[in-house]
Amino acid sequence: MLSEHAARTFRELQGRICQALEDVDGAARFREDAWEREGGGGGRSRVMTDGAVFEKAGVNWSLVHGDLRAEMADQLPGDGPFLATGVSLVLHPWSPMVPATHANFRYFERGGAAWVGGGCDLTPTYPWLEDVVAFHGALAEACAPHGEGLYPRFKAWCDEYFALPHRGETRGVGGLFFDYVGVAAGSLGPRVRAHAARALPDAMDLDRAFAFVQAVADAFLAAYLPIVERRRGEPWTEAEREFQLIRRGRYVEFNLLFDRGTVFGLRTGGRTESILMSLPPLVRWTYDYRPAPGSREAELADWLRPRDWLNCRSPHP
Amino acid sequence: MLSEHAARTFRELQGRICQALEDVDGAARFREDAWEREGGGGGRSRVMTDGAVFEKAGVNWSLVHGDLRAEMADQLPGDGPFLATGVSLVLHPWSPMVPATHANFRYFERGGAAWVGGGCDLTPTYPWLEDVVAFHGALAEACAPHGEGLYPRFKAWCDEYFALPHRGETRGVGGLFFDYVGVAAGSLGPRVRAHAARALPDAMDLDRAFAFVQAVADAFLAAYLPIVERRRGEPWTEAEREFQLIRRGRYVEFNLLFDRGTVFGLRTGGRTESILMSLPPLVRWTYDYRPAPGSREAELADWLRPRDWLNCRSPHP
Repeated sequence: MLSEHAARTFRELQGRICQALEDVDGAARFREDAWEREGGGGGRSRVMTDGAVFEKAGVNWSLVHGDLRAEMADQLPGDGPFLATGVSLVLHPWSPMVPATHANFRYFERGGAAWVGGGCDLTPTYPWLEDVVAFHGALAEACAPHGEGLYPRFKAWCDEYFALPHRGETRGVGGLFFDYVGVAAGSLGPRVRAHAARALPDAMDLDRAFAFVQAVADAFLAAYLPIVERRRGEPWTEAEREFQLIRRGRYVEFNLLFDRGTVFGLRTGGRTESILMSLPPLVRWTYDYRPAPGSREAELADWLRPRDWLNCRSPHP
Repeated sequence: MLSEHAARTFRELQGRICQALEDVDGAARFREDAWEREGGGGGRSRVMTDGAVFEKAGVNWSLVHGDLRAEMADQLPGDGPFLATGVSLVLHPWSPMVPATHANFRYFERGGAAWVGGGCDLTPTYPWLEDVVAFHGALAEACAPHGEGLYPRFKAWCDEYFALPHRGETRGVGGLFFDYVGVAAGSLGPRVRAHAARALPDAMDLDRAFAFVQAVADAFLAAYLPIVERRRGEPWTEAEREFQLIRRGRYVEFNLLFDRGTVFGLRTGGRTESILMSLPPLVRWTYDYRPAPGSREAELADWLRPRDWLNCRSPHP
């Protein structure tokens, strides 16, 4: 069964990611909490805090299955009970010069349908063009062998998904977001089809879809770690740290107001501490904060709109 | 028109509350931002930060009117355009010994219907029984002249509304929450009636309803200020401050995940900074935080369940 293969592959991926993060951090170690889900399945949450690089790093693995609540039943392809397995991670570095990042790679099965979803994205506090171009370049390269036009499609989906409409800004500088990859178009109901518009045109078979999600996961790790190495030594001031705490507030706003995984997970009895592992360790809300015109903080605000990063050669395209 | 009277009354209430808070703080002053709403109306947001007592205090007044979006149209009594005016406030003291508090007093008109809503509630970091009993006692006393059984009804509604089901706890130790008070029962559609079950049995006429909301507002201020005076001098440690930051995380979770005013306001183009004025200035999320058994922090956790505060004579009823 592919579900067993997927669960095992993601479990190994969790191990590999945690090992790489411990290596790059050099100081802290992950602790693991195993948990069971009342409706079926369970997971292993790994958290590392107060490291040399990472203030908080959470890497979840889970394999859950069971029945869907009525409100969700027509929002997923297939019918009957579901199975989902995957890895999700959120990394919050101490340094405002090292970007936060999020990634999620998952496999779903329901009735006759099976598919993969996920993605990864970068949330810098300070704008380093080299990092963002390299990150997007690596993702574009990972997408290329798996089908025509995947990078621009899933890059645009990411920009659209990780948006804070009440702020008129994106959560960060984007990356990839995809869903329903590998599912047969015929098995999608009308409600799903509305969500899945981008995934459908290039429907892959499931094996190819699974190879794709693995390739993105590998590319993500290979792209993020060098950014950490490049920026961990940059000096930073208390004022820059304060700006990071304010930016983290936007991260919280997105996750609690809009993130489907968070809101859905909390409302359907998921393990609260594993779901909210994504929240930054320390956060500030400052009423009506406005960066000084011409400052690097103001420049960051300018980056929080969809942009063609692959073709950015100067910070002001 | 009562709407003009209500708007003026709430504007004066905002002034009176801000004056009282400046007096008790003794160091900081409110700044005011006037804003206009694209769909009609506007408001005045007042914020005080970095005071002697208050780390952040926000007191909003607004008078807004216009058309309702389709998704909201059948969730309010009456039909056609609406008018709403009111005051809302959230106070976040520095000291973990002084409770945070929230209050909201508002008047609504739509089609033939008009009503008041709002309430107030207390969110202590550390449990001082005397404060909570006095707060609830003052609210019960304010309710008594306005109808039979109002306090227990609106106290229970508050416990139910300010709940974090994913944590299995209430946001704080409650207070009052009410809505649709003064509206004619016949003007409520079926969707509203489901929300309004508690408000209906004692339907008051509108003048009495407005007198009621004013009485609650006065009682709130008169009850909260002595708590501040009683606790502002209590010593506190860095560890207690850290516990306050963790508790504030729950406040954020409630406001962004569940608070109807926040979620509705942000999704319908309200002024983001005025809506999110309610968020605490500094917040911490600690993975899987658990208070030491027998500690005051563990005792607080025990308080976050609905309780008959009026009849509490010992901290462990």
